[in-house]
Amino acid sequence: MTQDNLRVAFQGERGAYSESAAVAFFGETVRPLPCKDFDDVFEAVKTEQVERGILPVENSLAGSIHRNYDLLLRNELFIVGEIQIPIAHQLIALPGVTLAEVKKVYSHPQALAQCEQSITKLLPQAERIATYDTAGSVKMIQEKNITDGAGLASERAANIYGMHILQTDMQDDAENYTRFVVVAREPVMPTGEVKTSVVFSMANIPGALFKSLAVFALRDIDLTKIESRPLQGKRWQYFFYIDFIGSQYEERGQNALNHLQEIATFFKVLGSYPRGV
Amino acid sequence: MTQDNLRVAFQGERGAYSESAAVAFFGETVRPLPCKDFDDVFEAVKTEQVERGILPVENSLAGSIHRNYDLLLRNELFIVGEIQIPIAHQLIALPGVTLAEVKKVYSHPQALAQCEQSITKLLPQAERIATYDTAGSVKMIQEKNITDGAGLASERAANIYGMHILQTDMQDDAENYTRFVVVAREPVMPTGEVKTSVVFSMANIPGALFKSLAVFALRDIDLTKIESRPLQGKRWQYFFYIDFIGSQYEERGQNALNHLQEIATFFKVLGSYPRGV
Repeated sequence: MTQDNLRVAFQGERGAYSESAAVAFFGETVRPLPCKDFDDVFEAVKTEQVERGILPVENSLAGSIHRNYDLLLRNELFIVGEIQIPIAHQLIALPGVTLAEVKKVYSHPQALAQCEQSITKLLPQAERIATYDTAGSVKMIQEKNITDGAGLASERAANIYGMHILQTDMQDDAENYTRFVVVAREPVMPTGEVKTSVVFSMANIPGALFKSLAVFALRDIDLTKIESRPLQGKRWQYFFYIDFIGSQYEERGQNALNHLQEIATFFKVLGSYPRGV
Repeated sequence: MTQDNLRVAFQGERGAYSESAAVAFFGETVRPLPCKDFDDVFEAVKTEQVERGILPVENSLAGSIHRNYDLLLRNELFIVGEIQIPIAHQLIALPGVTLAEVKKVYSHPQALAQCEQSITKLLPQAERIATYDTAGSVKMIQEKNITDGAGLASERAANIYGMHILQTDMQDDAENYTRFVVVAREPVMPTGEVKTSVVFSMANIPGALFKSLAVFALRDIDLTKIESRPLQGKRWQYFFYIDFIGSQYEERGQNALNHLQEIATFFKVLGSYPRGV
């Protein structure tokens, strides 16, 4: 199978940023499958409804999307790629609706927060209404024919629902990027510059994390990310998620992972994959 | 001034979990000041409207509340205490409304997600409606006299708005705790078991984080938390937030902090304070 026409599951309505990421990664021939929850994305891949899933894992402003780290841990899928895309929120309304008519702004609470200053400047009187979804807010405005409201979502959402962009780039901070990972049922043998993602936990004793980082530092392996995540049911004990430059299929990476496994109480490699741009 | 009758700012409507945390920390005589945003909590303390602010920093299921870490970094306030409280979501409706009449469940998206299974079991047909706030959803139901809906919020919210609890403990996972920090204009000289919170960044080179953890490991200092946080405007570079057991006013802690300052590119102590229970 080529990467053309791949079926790829994502969370959200058509026009979600995850769909934009899928198109950026696989090209316009990709066949995106919208899913209600992140769980459903994993399910769609596992049950072979689709070949790939795409999941946001980290936003440059908001930090990690913990839910997806939890699901990567629990599900037997592999990370086979990554991509990061800019998040540009557009103010989107029904065609013909003018800025002066907008009394309500609908979007996900995070998008509303990221556009707070722009909304205040452009629409000082507007009421902010929280929805589940950025693209979903645009879909709802279109379906319910809401003529006094606008949504905050991607340009792709505006196109898909035949809506009009009243104002581009509503985000207050231009450095707004989200990093996505691509998951599959089988691992890949990556080429080029490779990243590996691993999750582990350590006994809750002083110096434990230091020892686990020594595994990489002693081998001059560069870490690109470390994240601690509460262990469910064990209050204030943590899983650690680490991304490092290198492959589990090369000697240095393999040695580091063997060493880590030796000292960790739990250990799982999520995948080695080509580093995204 | 005693700790009685202290004015304490918190984010959210009356009845928010942050208010419960303030009462648990300061006692029932506390005078809580509701604020719209986390920013306003910092502002209220800085402008001497209140003596203290209380802020959620970490939930055992959802992880860290990054926004508050950012604000702790930017504002010249000090952490002077911490407390963790269980998060128990109650299904709350107008008095007289029965479970069978509830067609809509209102709450913050995170609370809705945390009660997903309970809602599906108890109210299989119910529509979920996202609001900004847990307690705010109850306030809205009361003010707008919504007779076909219920909110998910604290028991305290039900009492404050004179509402009825249809079902207790809606959260799917019982191990749902949130940790709050108390902030003030002046630091405290803590006694008993002490924690210190520090934020720093390192040059983006291999082994940098390892070196910074050596500062603590070499002195047998126990870390209770590590968090990486994207540096605003510098994509995928990170601040690190660390909590350790010990005081900046004791020799060992002071030595570790001096050592860290020596190797960090940015460094700030957020406070030493009595460890919460």
